[in-house]
Amino acid sequence: MLDLVSLRRDFHMHPEVGFTEFRTASKVVEILTSLGYDVIYGQDALDGPSRRGLPAQGVLEEAYERALRDGANPAIVEKMRGGYTAVIGVKKGKTDGPTVAFRFDMDALPVLESTDGDHFPEANGFRSRYEGNMHACAHDGHTTLGLGLAEKLANGDFAGTLKLIFQPAEEGVRGAYSIVQKGLLDDVDYLFCQHLGVNVPLGEIHGGSHGLLATTKMLAHFHGVSSHAGASPEHGKNALLGAATALLNIHAITRFSTAATRINVGVLEGGTAANIIPAYAKMIVETRSETEEVNAEVEKRVRNIIASSAAMHELDYAIEVIGAAIPINYDEDMADLALEEARHVEGFHSFKKGEYNAMGSEDASFMIKRVQERGGKGTYMSIGTDIPAPHHHPKFDIQEEILPRSVELLTRIAKRLLT
Amino acid sequence: MLDLVSLRRDFHMHPEVGFTEFRTASKVVEILTSLGYDVIYGQDALDGPSRRGLPAQGVLEEAYERALRDGANPAIVEKMRGGYTAVIGVKKGKTDGPTVAFRFDMDALPVLESTDGDHFPEANGFRSRYEGNMHACAHDGHTTLGLGLAEKLANGDFAGTLKLIFQPAEEGVRGAYSIVQKGLLDDVDYLFCQHLGVNVPLGEIHGGSHGLLATTKMLAHFHGVSSHAGASPEHGKNALLGAATALLNIHAITRFSTAATRINVGVLEGGTAANIIPAYAKMIVETRSETEEVNAEVEKRVRNIIASSAAMHELDYAIEVIGAAIPINYDEDMADLALEEARHVEGFHSFKKGEYNAMGSEDASFMIKRVQERGGKGTYMSIGTDIPAPHHHPKFDIQEEILPRSVELLTRIAKRLLT
Amino acid sequence: MLDLVSLRRDFHMHPEVGFTEFRTASKVVEILTSLGYDVIYGQDALDGPSRRGLPAQGVLEEAYERALRDGANPAIVEKMRGGYTAVIGVKKGKTDGPTVAFRFDMDALPVLESTDGDHFPEANGFRSRYEGNMHACAHDGHTTLGLGLAEKLANGDFAGTLKLIFQPAEEGVRGAYSIVQKGLLDDVDYLFCQHLGVNVPLGEIHGGSHGLLATTKMLAHFHGVSSHAGASPEHGKNALLGAATALLNIHAITRFSTAATRINVGVLEGGTAANIIPAYAKMIVETRSETEEVNAEVEKRVRNIIASSAAMHELDYAIEVIGAAIPINYDEDMADLALEEARHVEGFHSFKKGEYNAMGSEDASFMIKRVQERGGKGTYMSIGTDIPAPHHHPKFDIQEEILPRSVELLTRIAKRLLT
Amino acid sequence: MLDLVSLRRDFHMHPEVGFTEFRTASKVVEILTSLGYDVIYGQDALDGPSRRGLPAQGVLEEAYERALRDGANPAIVEKMRGGYTAVIGVKKGKTDGPTVAFRFDMDALPVLESTDGDHFPEANGFRSRYEGNMHACAHDGHTTLGLGLAEKLANGDFAGTLKLIFQPAEEGVRGAYSIVQKGLLDDVDYLFCQHLGVNVPLGEIHGGSHGLLATTKMLAHFHGVSSHAGASPEHGKNALLGAATALLNIHAITRFSTAATRINVGVLEGGTAANIIPAYAKMIVETRSETEEVNAEVEKRVRNIIASSAAMHELDYAIEVIGAAIPINYDEDMADLALEEARHVEGFHSFKKGEYNAMGSEDASFMIKRVQERGGKGTYMSIGTDIPAPHHHPKFDIQEEILPRSVELLTRIAKRLLT
Repeated sequence: MLDLVSLRRDFHMHPEVGFTEFRTASKVVEILTSLGYDVIYGQDALDGPSRRGLPAQGVLEEAYERALRDGANPAIVEKMRGGYTAVIGVKKGKTDGPTVAFRFDMDALPVLESTDGDHFPEANGFRSRYEGNMHACAHDGHTTLGLGLAEKLANGDFAGTLKLIFQPAEEGVRGAYSIVQKGLLDDVDYLFCQHLGVNVPLGEIHGGSHGLLATTKMLAHFHGVSSHAGASPEHGKNALLGAATALLNIHAITRFSTAATRINVGVLEGGTAANIIPAYAKMIVETRSETEEVNAEVEKRVRNIIASSAAMHELDYAIEVIGAAIPINYDEDMADLALEEARHVEGFHSFKKGEYNAMGSEDASFMIKRVQERGGKGTYMSIGTDIPAPHHHPKFDIQEEILPRSVELLTRIAKRLLT
Repeated sequence: MLDLVSLRRDFHMHPEVGFTEFRTASKVVEILTSLGYDVIYGQDALDGPSRRGLPAQGVLEEAYERALRDGANPAIVEKMRGGYTAVIGVKKGKTDGPTVAFRFDMDALPVLESTDGDHFPEANGFRSRYEGNMHACAHDGHTTLGLGLAEKLANGDFAGTLKLIFQPAEEGVRGAYSIVQKGLLDDVDYLFCQHLGVNVPLGEIHGGSHGLLATTKMLAHFHGVSSHAGASPEHGKNALLGAATALLNIHAITRFSTAATRINVGVLEGGTAANIIPAYAKMIVETRSETEEVNAEVEKRVRNIIASSAAMHELDYAIEVIGAAIPINYDEDMADLALEEARHVEGFHSFKKGEYNAMGSEDASFMIKRVQERGGKGTYMSIGTDIPAPHHHPKFDIQEEILPRSVELLTRIAKRLLT
Repeated sequence: MLDLVSLRRDFHMHPEVGFTEFRTASKVVEILTSLGYDVIYGQDALDGPSRRGLPAQGVLEEAYERALRDGANPAIVEKMRGGYTAVIGVKKGKTDGPTVAFRFDMDALPVLESTDGDHFPEANGFRSRYEGNMHACAHDGHTTLGLGLAEKLANGDFAGTLKLIFQPAEEGVRGAYSIVQKGLLDDVDYLFCQHLGVNVPLGEIHGGSHGLLATTKMLAHFHGVSSHAGASPEHGKNALLGAATALLNIHAITRFSTAATRINVGVLEGGTAANIIPAYAKMIVETRSETEEVNAEVEKRVRNIIASSAAMHELDYAIEVIGAAIPINYDEDMADLALEEARHVEGFHSFKKGEYNAMGSEDASFMIKRVQERGGKGTYMSIGTDIPAPHHHPKFDIQEEILPRSVELLTRIAKRLLT
Repeated sequence: MLDLVSLRRDFHMHPEVGFTEFRTASKVVEILTSLGYDVIYGQDALDGPSRRGLPAQGVLEEAYERALRDGANPAIVEKMRGGYTAVIGVKKGKTDGPTVAFRFDMDALPVLESTDGDHFPEANGFRSRYEGNMHACAHDGHTTLGLGLAEKLANGDFAGTLKLIFQPAEEGVRGAYSIVQKGLLDDVDYLFCQHLGVNVPLGEIHGGSHGLLATTKMLAHFHGVSSHAGASPEHGKNALLGAATALLNIHAITRFSTAATRINVGVLEGGTAANIIPAYAKMIVETRSETEEVNAEVEKRVRNIIASSAAMHELDYAIEVIGAAIPINYDEDMADLALEEARHVEGFHSFKKGEYNAMGSEDASFMIKRVQERGGKGTYMSIGTDIPAPHHHPKFDIQEEILPRSVELLTRIAKRLLT
């Protein structure tokens, strides 16, 4: 039987950021296989071109080598090489029935974990071994929940199909979309996603959370022509002039009366030297809105501003979407069902639905939307745990007692529907 | 015989700005006709669509009515209605020979003439009768010179053809181009243009002046969509955002290593009320350069910036050229010829060529260029007169003794070539 | 007895915009005086320097002369000369009691009234006689209500004091503040303000309306130095460069997470000619927010951007507040009391409270806040009337049957509290 | 006797960039000492705080260690630690007389030297051993000339004082100023500076070169406050908004009628992530002009724009000058004297003065100006050598035959004046 705490601590010690979850995903494949699941992974588990914000090839390779050094199964991980790090475990029940899916995200963050003595992982010897990376958003716990659930239902003693989706690159809202585009949500009738923590206290559970914002994260490249700034400035095509013009006008996009919005140019970098007309600049832009429609309109305006700023200074440009999410509209009956089951699990005593407690965005939204578009239902649950420091903080941590409790909840939900 | 001083003072009292020189041009037609010249005027004397910066219809009509009230010949001026105020007087000599042309500009400025007792026109009763308009750039003198010259050569006792070109709208460099486009310079072998004053002292003459800048003056219109700034800002398309973006980027056009440049956005106006997204803005832009090529490149960049700023904010736009000039490259032998003749005219004692003494631009440049392109020659002369105040100043004036002297010079030049 | 319909139509025919309500205010003074009220007006009724967006002196004088021509009482109106057009009628009751105030706004709009045959005022001979001005926001009705109420309570048969406040310049949210600053609200215990129409149908009344936005409207002046753009651009200090920089950065002020905001630069005008570095520019900026605090912060940022843009281009600048309002928080019990009384007035059948039906701002907000700050209470009511066209539209009109009904309501409210 | 070619090749193999010339300067000290010169170096040879664009401490230390490994004298180089890499050799003559100085720059460039077989240093085994650094601007030759000259005059058989100035960090115009500020030019009567190459062919010499531009290179830092762009954008102070506003307005600085100018923002970098309001940005700005006065005015405007852009967005800022130069006005008689002496040196056959053949700036200008300010004289000579590729190019090289010839010229000049 799986030791959930050991499992979580192993993941915690080996935090892998988005699309480099080679070791983590390899372990997941091994365990699911040992439990008798059919396992889909590698290029079968996601649509390569739909991955957003894929790291550079060198970064992927370095992480791949590290995973091999640290115990990833070479035969398995080879299929994930280049950032194909999604894993889907499928178990068919003894009789026909609906397809019930659960989603677990596996990636870590580029955060340097605390070495303070009062930081639980440090004090207990499972601090990150990958300096500068850290599981500071509970995905080590999420992955553990998925494996725990897999074990509980490994006997297939149910009607229908269980589908466990282990997703890469939730941070930056980058990975879910590529799994959806591979068609892997198309047969799902019920989908449950969840997050530990998110400012919900231990003992409380939210059966459905909404209010997560639609967002698009874009990386824009401006390509001009360099020239000596003293000798022949007129031969240059100034990438920074284009980018700065875009930056000001992007921030100047008007408010919408129909939904709150947010706009940020988070990064601008260009030029090489004092005396050279800058030939290249890059910019990272983030849009958000309460509605998918308004976010799409703001994104459209950002794209037009970038295109026009480039044209204004005779630059070439390119825009990559490096992250995106849409709002989540959970199904009331799924949320209610989850709360009903939670009432049977010891340790939960506060039962809610409604506004998400943490600001932000989630790309599980694409999965839920796809299920709903095809007639299925879904929800996004917030499962409480007290946290010593905010999400993404060097001293973030979860209470490990939430792990078995959550596995029990998910098991109850699955069994309730797989009939 | 014409009284040059009376003539100049009559013009001075009735200053008409560009394309409204109805009374002035009517007088010119009358006098040329009385001297036996063939006179081309109205739509035959310029190409209507090539006029730049034409005043609004209402302004033209008002000036037309005023001219009728103040003695313009109705039969003549009717043909000029709507701003067709160029006049060309042609006199064929007794035998064949070259075509020699002189150019005189007739328009006044929107300047309020001084009422100080020490201002010569005020003291001598010929201050402007059109409040707010003034001959503050000597064009009253120029027109007088043209008529004086016409009289001297009225007998046609020469070989070849004399062509006297009375041009509207030199201020703002707007009128010459339309005469060129009508083809009226195409048969000219020698062209002489001149300016009185321009910081050359009495007694000095420059046989050729260069250094006048190429320039383009553009009026840009930005058309967006208004909307209530509180209730539905997202429905607006903000013309002022587009215009302000254009303004900054136009000023940011880079220096050229090949020629000095100047760029100015002289006017920006847009919007109607605090709570309305501005639906319209207009902008007046001026470019200049030492060379026609660089000015053309700067103009091209300005146009691209305006187009891109409009596109950036989903605006329609239009650009009108309301004025333009190119540099003047006078022919050395024409300048030398002028100086040689000047040595025979009493009153001139300093003889030069070279850099223009006054900053600025001249649309006679288009005429000289056209003549040169077709194998002819031309020059632009600066004829000295002391001035009590700078050009365009409310107390500007010329010394009237320069009038007969200049007529004599032009007559000598014409006779020298018409052989 | 007053004929409310005739009164309203007289006001409708003589629409006077903000701070030029000379004829209207003169009539109000005459009627209040005839009814035995103590009347405060002229410089006693408002604080001159606190008036926002005062028209130019010439405009005030022209309107003053027109009022005299059209029947304003010369002895009265002389005290209003220069835009002192507030009037306060005070009636002391027979015994002591609270001070109950009502506020009525008198100004019209710069809207050209429709001449269509189906426009009721046109069809019935009381279309505006002041071309280009129109009562298109029901203030003619409001003023009439105030006089009707004055008549009903003229006998002073109540306990306490009745205060009727006739305000100039509500449009542009400019006049109320100057009355508050004069201290005229300081002794008020209960204040009732109301608007006819505002998308509430006939028969419905809202006892209290909130959701009106805080707003500040600013006129900024940028003063630089002109210079010839060709000859000596470096001697200029470019007002338009400063203003355009301010414009872009004002629009780029970030969103607030704590309250919705709006920002608009409604007008930008600067410069005189293509070849002159612009020495002057002006800009009208409007900020809004759901909360007074956030609006104040946005206003502060706008001011800083203007100051910094001016400093950046070595310009002098000045900022005038030409309009302002704050949100209204009505007192629940006052709204309830109004609704209770409305139930006793024939014609009302729908009774509500809550969100204001029309987008916008109201400077009665300053009056209500002052009363509340000093321990009193207040509300802002919306009294329904069907309207054939939106507020501020050339075909706007009210149903005159609402006039006596509203007078009855206000009278009941006053009597209820004056005990 | 020194082998000039070996010396030059040794320097070429060990190219050290500005303020890291530890090995080079150590060798210079050793040789000057061995020749009996008084040698000033370390903190005595320059004013530490006046060094511009000093590399980071880590970079300095790494270069220091490398120099020790590659043969720098530990006792000498220790005094240079931290970037004190100037060396002054002084030789007093047998009798009194004037002080004659020569200046030689020692630093290399961050250029990767060519490995092509036809590149002379590669083919002859003295290509750079410091990958990525290269003597691509002839300073290896300059340093060699200085030592050759030192040897020729080592006997002190002259009247007056010889001063040989070996300067760090000419590239980026960073080092000369700190030597001037230390007062080391204050006693100089005659100063000769020279450059090999600069588009002058072998056999030609320019006794004086002018036209080098005044320039200032600034590094600006903008410090704001980060905040989550979704959750609380209003708590951020956006460094990139300030920097982009500065960038546009710096480019928009007007043309000057009195001197050509150049302005470039060569680098802009800021921000960390899509969802964070950027708290920091840096910008590198370069100004240039034909005159020191106009460059100073443009620099002043740049500083004001940066300060105002920072104030506009409530940012702190700092500006460092990381490089500067002024124009050179050589003394005609010094240039003539140099040409006279050159006529006696075999190999020179073309003798000129005037416009500098290469675009750019030189901080020897500060040295010449200081000498001139104190009544001395100076010149900047261009000594021809054919070059296979432009300055700063990976295949740049000089003809080594120019070395002894130039030493002879400098020796003649020195002897002529030291009498």
